[in-house]
Amino acid sequence: MIKVSIVGATGYVGIELMRLLQQHPQVIIKDLISKSNAKKKLVDVYPQFRGSKLENYTLIALEDFQPEDSDLIFSALPHGVSQDISSQLIKSGTKIIDMSGDFRYHDIEIYEKWYGVEHKHPELAKKAVYGLTELNRTQIKNAEFIANPGCYVTASLLGILPLIDSDLVKTESIIIDAKSGVSGAGRSLKSNLLFTECHNTMKAYSPAVHRHSSEIEYILNEFLQGSYDSRSSEQRAEILFTPHLIPIKRGILTTIYLDCKRKSSDSEIFSLYEDFYGQEKFVQVLKDELPEIKNIAGSNFAQLGFKYDQRTDRIIVISVIDNMLKGAAGQAVQNMNVLFGIDEDTGLQATALFP
Amino acid sequence: MIKVSIVGATGYVGIELMRLLQQHPQVIIKDLISKSNAKKKLVDVYPQFRGSKLENYTLIALEDFQPEDSDLIFSALPHGVSQDISSQLIKSGTKIIDMSGDFRYHDIEIYEKWYGVEHKHPELAKKAVYGLTELNRTQIKNAEFIANPGCYVTASLLGILPLIDSDLVKTESIIIDAKSGVSGAGRSLKSNLLFTECHNTMKAYSPAVHRHSSEIEYILNEFLQGSYDSRSSEQRAEILFTPHLIPIKRGILTTIYLDCKRKSSDSEIFSLYEDFYGQEKFVQVLKDELPEIKNIAGSNFAQLGFKYDQRTDRIIVISVIDNMLKGAAGQAVQNMNVLFGIDEDTGLQATALFP
Amino acid sequence: MIKVSIVGATGYVGIELMRLLQQHPQVIIKDLISKSNAKKKLVDVYPQFRGSKLENYTLIALEDFQPEDSDLIFSALPHGVSQDISSQLIKSGTKIIDMSGDFRYHDIEIYEKWYGVEHKHPELAKKAVYGLTELNRTQIKNAEFIANPGCYVTASLLGILPLIDSDLVKTESIIIDAKSGVSGAGRSLKSNLLFTECHNTMKAYSPAVHRHSSEIEYILNEFLQGSYDSRSSEQRAEILFTPHLIPIKRGILTTIYLDCKRKSSDSEIFSLYEDFYGQEKFVQVLKDELPEIKNIAGSNFAQLGFKYDQRTDRIIVISVIDNMLKGAAGQAVQNMNVLFGIDEDTGLQATALFP
Amino acid sequence: MIKVSIVGATGYVGIELMRLLQQHPQVIIKDLISKSNAKKKLVDVYPQFRGSKLENYTLIALEDFQPEDSDLIFSALPHGVSQDISSQLIKSGTKIIDMSGDFRYHDIEIYEKWYGVEHKHPELAKKAVYGLTELNRTQIKNAEFIANPGCYVTASLLGILPLIDSDLVKTESIIIDAKSGVSGAGRSLKSNLLFTECHNTMKAYSPAVHRHSSEIEYILNEFLQGSYDSRSSEQRAEILFTPHLIPIKRGILTTIYLDCKRKSSDSEIFSLYEDFYGQEKFVQVLKDELPEIKNIAGSNFAQLGFKYDQRTDRIIVISVIDNMLKGAAGQAVQNMNVLFGIDEDTGLQATALFP
Repeated sequence: MIKVSIVGATGYVGIELMRLLQQHPQVIIKDLISKSNAKKKLVDVYPQFRGSKLENYTLIALEDFQPEDSDLIFSALPHGVSQDISSQLIKSGTKIIDMSGDFRYHDIEIYEKWYGVEHKHPELAKKAVYGLTELNRTQIKNAEFIANPGCYVTASLLGILPLIDSDLVKTESIIIDAKSGVSGAGRSLKSNLLFTECHNTMKAYSPAVHRHSSEIEYILNEFLQGSYDSRSSEQRAEILFTPHLIPIKRGILTTIYLDCKRKSSDSEIFSLYEDFYGQEKFVQVLKDELPEIKNIAGSNFAQLGFKYDQRTDRIIVISVIDNMLKGAAGQAVQNMNVLFGIDEDTGLQATALFP
Repeated sequence: MIKVSIVGATGYVGIELMRLLQQHPQVIIKDLISKSNAKKKLVDVYPQFRGSKLENYTLIALEDFQPEDSDLIFSALPHGVSQDISSQLIKSGTKIIDMSGDFRYHDIEIYEKWYGVEHKHPELAKKAVYGLTELNRTQIKNAEFIANPGCYVTASLLGILPLIDSDLVKTESIIIDAKSGVSGAGRSLKSNLLFTECHNTMKAYSPAVHRHSSEIEYILNEFLQGSYDSRSSEQRAEILFTPHLIPIKRGILTTIYLDCKRKSSDSEIFSLYEDFYGQEKFVQVLKDELPEIKNIAGSNFAQLGFKYDQRTDRIIVISVIDNMLKGAAGQAVQNMNVLFGIDEDTGLQATALFP
Repeated sequence: MIKVSIVGATGYVGIELMRLLQQHPQVIIKDLISKSNAKKKLVDVYPQFRGSKLENYTLIALEDFQPEDSDLIFSALPHGVSQDISSQLIKSGTKIIDMSGDFRYHDIEIYEKWYGVEHKHPELAKKAVYGLTELNRTQIKNAEFIANPGCYVTASLLGILPLIDSDLVKTESIIIDAKSGVSGAGRSLKSNLLFTECHNTMKAYSPAVHRHSSEIEYILNEFLQGSYDSRSSEQRAEILFTPHLIPIKRGILTTIYLDCKRKSSDSEIFSLYEDFYGQEKFVQVLKDELPEIKNIAGSNFAQLGFKYDQRTDRIIVISVIDNMLKGAAGQAVQNMNVLFGIDEDTGLQATALFP
Repeated sequence: MIKVSIVGATGYVGIELMRLLQQHPQVIIKDLISKSNAKKKLVDVYPQFRGSKLENYTLIALEDFQPEDSDLIFSALPHGVSQDISSQLIKSGTKIIDMSGDFRYHDIEIYEKWYGVEHKHPELAKKAVYGLTELNRTQIKNAEFIANPGCYVTASLLGILPLIDSDLVKTESIIIDAKSGVSGAGRSLKSNLLFTECHNTMKAYSPAVHRHSSEIEYILNEFLQGSYDSRSSEQRAEILFTPHLIPIKRGILTTIYLDCKRKSSDSEIFSLYEDFYGQEKFVQVLKDELPEIKNIAGSNFAQLGFKYDQRTDRIIVISVIDNMLKGAAGQAVQNMNVLFGIDEDTGLQATALFP
């Protein structure tokens, strides 16, 4: 049994981790660490845990946490905050899966530019292993410290990588139009996240300048340069990314526009995806059918669909994931499974909750 | 392993049964029977089953179904239709859990009056065992044919029974104000179920005359008369029931108003509930806290809260269930577990999906 | 032309007042007073006013406001705060319509008990005129200071008054089960008002102890004792009130349960309502049809429907209003029209916005 | 006073026309024609018209309609159906504003290719005047027959035209990612429009092949070739258009990606928009701020925002409209005002209904 603890347990990502881990057959949940809710009973903060294995857990403060008693720590802290705490905790020798943006870039300069904060632990950033499971499984297996990807980034990369891998599309003119449910913004008290401000409406935010732009672009460039296999390409990726907020609780849909280098066809593209994802358990490639959030919300699956437009020689790729699962906690558990050498879908077999 | 089949597999209750059963560790799903979708692949009708154990299932027609090859049949057909089919299927000797209203009344006259149809199989109705697990576990254990309760009925009875059991409240003036998500209406094509007609609005329907009124009242009277234990009361239950449609997908909240026979207190009432439900796994009694649909949606739990009003000597009981789970498919699986002598929460341990 | 100003202009009630008043053919909006947004341009706080007459307005602080330059002030402040400010402003001689709970009770003791604050201006509370237009039109005509009713209270009283007026129902056992959209809670930053916490769920709150309980009961008792006409009844009203939060933006639906004193019928009850509301422009009595929020959201109408239950001799009344309109700003404008002797529906003729 | 009638009165566009027209100070509504609801009272089909001027209207069949008694007919029929009926009605000499796609293309071949039906009245299509008011006001003034634009088309063209007009962007690589509320799909009974299928989810549909693609492209090409002014460009427009369904009732948001021909800046682009729209009452150009559906839903306004991305020399344009208003009925009334020489915003001054 794997003993796990969660730091930042009472954010939305934290509780999603708990929901998954308390039913994972090979996990024992050790400590739940929360600054704002320390010493409270978990069920008094989140009543849905009544009747679960966590029913009688009490949240503890970080200073009362002994990291060395756990086999794995999930750090579900905000970026900036995670830097210091994760780099402290790793000294205990316990493995960490970090959910923040702090350790996703080996190149600190890009991080500092897009996040607008100084990075105080560049050496840890350098050795952190990027946790997009389907891309980086081999390194994840042996990692000490895993940087779990951003939600938008996971949805985008899963859709783009096969097309870049096969050299079918131009890498410098990728457009990603992304739509996310409101849970992606966390539980922070902002007036623009109130029900009355979000319901029955929609908006774009941070066009071209959202931090996940830089993460998508950075990983694509690492990929082109051979960080994830033996390739070495001269090409550089450049992406334009616009996120939108939609009035749903969970789910991301990205619509990606790519220019083909040559004529193609729906059947060729389907083959490329099939080849790339082969036996992947959590990536579904659809043919003559489009993904929809309700088909995967509540599950760890990503669904990919696409349409080749003969008129303009472009491919429209549509990907959907549950931002709380494949976009955050689900992928973190998937990475944990890889790390501890157990079946990758252990504890992650749920089908979407529909209706 | 229990071999189960589902008749009426592609209605909302049918797919919820599949969602639960494909992950149940002691179940093998045998046949999925659907009239409207026979010969189609399940994933072409409900894409969320891609990646599940049911991925390669094909729906079959009733005439191609051999009931004797299953250990248990879930019949998820509409009332009226279920009458004939369930009474045919039971002849195979296979046990049945019937989800319709057709077999919930031993007294056929009440059924015929409220459902407005003739009952052609009164002998089967007589021997059907009512499937409110917490009320009728002993009979369910040995049943051949289980009539699974209505969704509103489950939410209402769980809230009312302990107060009647303890003789604290008047039985002839119970008012139930119930609110249900739209999935309760099924997948039928009616203009009043369109998104644009249901979103951002609310309405009452069938006040005082909804069929579930009669079921609640009937079971309460059976209870008073000793059908479920050794009691024998002179009292008669009379309820007034008003359902409402709310713009959510799943979940029922009932607000029940009961007149006390004498002064009481919140702490006395809490004790009554605690005593009544004792070690029940799926009923949670809250103290100084009110139930909320999000705390149980996606789980098989019922949550009960209450408030004693000293000014008017009334008790306000609030109960919430997920209409697809404890209100339908979840309770059916719970009954299956009882019937086959396995742990009652096997396959039903999921925590609410929140956010 | 009537010169009006709004104090507390940037709360939800304030902006609804502006939306209505900027299109009112006999109104000039003078000053918009806001503490939190003073000196900001209105369109920078609420962009929907771009393109309206208010496009170039700047919000001002209370200390820069000259009340005597307006003919009427709408005070849309929270209770407690309104007490002091309204009682200061009234000294200018300008008429006031106050939207808070501070001046709705002539009997200060009831206010202090239910609101839990001291009332520092009982003399003003005494002379304030209660602004349920259909009940109190004659006094409103000549008022100096109008206390606009609560939203739940308006929906409840409109449904109950005709039945009490005709002495058909018992006054001491009225049960009101009310459901409100989230805008009723205002724009305050509370985590339970976040989209992710309110969407796709429902809950009850403050059962039996919500402040509007006391207002409904108080006005009913005033009515019985002849405060609004020449009657003088020995009866006392006692109500039990449970509000619920539903995931819609605007709209209230109340389901009211009343015990009849004698046998009645749907047609008798319809006549009572018709007689009571006669030529009222904003109250619609439905026959053989139930009200629905979407039929009135965005309009100042109240819709009333009902069902007489022969089995239990009870009447179920269902009323719907838009909490922002007939429940707040719309009724305030209606009262302004009465006060200034212009057609009661001036500026209020909008039909519900559907879909 | 203008006497108007509506054919296809009980579709969603029809009832939105009624909502607007019954409050228009210079309009008398004459006949409401409906095939499916002929002889019914309007309020029995749409209860929200209770209390309005239309309260006592009865819907009539087409064969009982005398078109010559009206000054203007709004035809709100589906495409295909509208062809025959509008071309019959125009013979009466009464002016028509047609809401369908049938007469939006002077070039019948494009229509036939994208709509998949034969056009039986090419001569009427030739003389129909395209009703994007801001583009074509001069011709609308003198029109006999106006083809009102598609909803997606209006949102897209308003965002794109100023940039093409100023020759800043490439015309052959425009990408439009559009999102629409469900009312855009009308009231037809399709299972994918049920609440339970649309709520809390999102999907793309018809990528690259939606009919509105062809309309956007066709009008842009007409514009480039000088159909709307004296220009004559060699350039051809080519657009790639992907619509999505979002769980809101009304509203469209389009995110448009355009390649610049040269370096630009946010301030230059703002000037271009300002110059192009000058004194337009219904088009709002935002600076340093992004449009949001809630700011215009319930109003006839379009809001435009944009972001120049220096990294990729692209412009991201975001436009929002209410699909029922500026996207359909509102623009039709705007065109009626132009046609009859009255103030363009008569009857259209409503501010967005928020919250």
